[in-house]
Amino acid sequence: MISKSELKYIQSLYHKKTRDKEKLFIVEGPKMVGELLESHFRVRKILSTVPDWTSRYPTAPVTVVSSELLGRASGLKTPHEVLAIVEMPEIIPPAPAKAGRLILALDAIRDPGNMGTLIRLADWFGVDQIIASTDTADRYNPKVVQATMGSLFRVPVHYTDLKDYLGRSSLPVLGALLSGQPLGSFPLPVPLKEGIILIGNESTGIHPDLLPLITQAVKIPSFGQAESLNAAIAAAVLLGHIKIPAQVPGGTL
Amino acid sequence: MISKSELKYIQSLYHKKTRDKEKLFIVEGPKMVGELLESHFRVRKILSTVPDWTSRYPTAPVTVVSSELLGRASGLKTPHEVLAIVEMPEIIPPAPAKAGRLILALDAIRDPGNMGTLIRLADWFGVDQIIASTDTADRYNPKVVQATMGSLFRVPVHYTDLKDYLGRSSLPVLGALLSGQPLGSFPLPVPLKEGIILIGNESTGIHPDLLPLITQAVKIPSFGQAESLNAAIAAAVLLGHIKIPAQVPGGTL
Repeated sequence: MISKSELKYIQSLYHKKTRDKEKLFIVEGPKMVGELLESHFRVRKILSTVPDWTSRYPTAPVTVVSSELLGRASGLKTPHEVLAIVEMPEIIPPAPAKAGRLILALDAIRDPGNMGTLIRLADWFGVDQIIASTDTADRYNPKVVQATMGSLFRVPVHYTDLKDYLGRSSLPVLGALLSGQPLGSFPLPVPLKEGIILIGNESTGIHPDLLPLITQAVKIPSFGQAESLNAAIAAAVLLGHIKIPAQVPGGTL
Repeated sequence: MISKSELKYIQSLYHKKTRDKEKLFIVEGPKMVGELLESHFRVRKILSTVPDWTSRYPTAPVTVVSSELLGRASGLKTPHEVLAIVEMPEIIPPAPAKAGRLILALDAIRDPGNMGTLIRLADWFGVDQIIASTDTADRYNPKVVQATMGSLFRVPVHYTDLKDYLGRSSLPVLGALLSGQPLGSFPLPVPLKEGIILIGNESTGIHPDLLPLITQAVKIPSFGQAESLNAAIAAAVLLGHIKIPAQVPGGTL
């Protein structure tokens, strides 16, 4: 069991202010908590409705609770089985981007679902690091955490002044802009071994202050009438294009 | 002004059952309603807090209402300016896929955000039609409508028995499967002029009944440790790969 005040404390972690002060965040669901326990993140406490969790992870700090209590501690509509309170790892200020590194830079991504999807996408495509502007959605926001599907435990996300960061980096910066050159219409080293992929805010795009720092403005060529693409979708097409080998020509289906 | 019973009627359109019975759905926000008025969709009524809407669209059936009333009619957390009640266009059963057509087939996409994003993506990449299984999220669900950013008015979405539809089609079917052949590792005609791109459910993938109908199983090559990609993200990478010309080799950044 856990006390009333403990429950209140857990609930307070749904607020960024408390999270940042306590340096703790919440992870939910058996799959996510399973991945968490295989990561280097330190777990403070686990609440589970399933006694089995104590035997499956004998060293994990599991407390068995009622479904009703888990429901009250959970941020999900349909809480499932397990909830973990996790320590934020110490934040090391991001070093200037180095040769041989592929970095995803995010400027003011606001939607937690987009942010989580971008972290998952970065993990899929082997991005070494995410650098986000300080007004980007918090990586420890429960909605971001859930949308990463565990990739949060593998991809380092740093929040910093993007202008300063890009200015100090010597890597080429590929900026996704509706006014950029269409992918495929100009020479680009593919697969791209190093560089910074810069993705802007969902409605306003990349901040004007960052535009002079872009080495190559790229656009995802359009074949229809949609005015724009969702930020995570644009990043997906871009990462796919620079990472996946060019098509073997002459095939049939 | 509108009456209490009219307001109740509008609110009832947030339920699929009522929408289907009344053949009406809701569109919100100045940008979306603007695109709606330029489409072939027929608008039954528009509520707006801004008198300007009556002059901007003199033939549109605009009723000026208070912010408080718009808020009660709206499904959004922050309602903005205008809400339209729109007639569903008549549904023509989808013809078998024809040569020269690029079709996106969706099997049991459940999340409204994903569904809306997929419609927007299809519009961007010039997909001619979306064919969705009957258990895919409703195109007229308000969350789907908003996530399409207006592409709903341009891309036809049909709901049907996918097994039957794919069985009757003579076009090649490219199925996104984690067990498929990695993109770029086998010959594929790019840009792909015709075919059906099949995307499966967010957690369970493509239904086993549909697997024998796949001509070419494809996988998005992975470069990291994420186990899977979000369905809309996978579709984005796939569409990008088959539509965007292969990279001009030898470039530098």
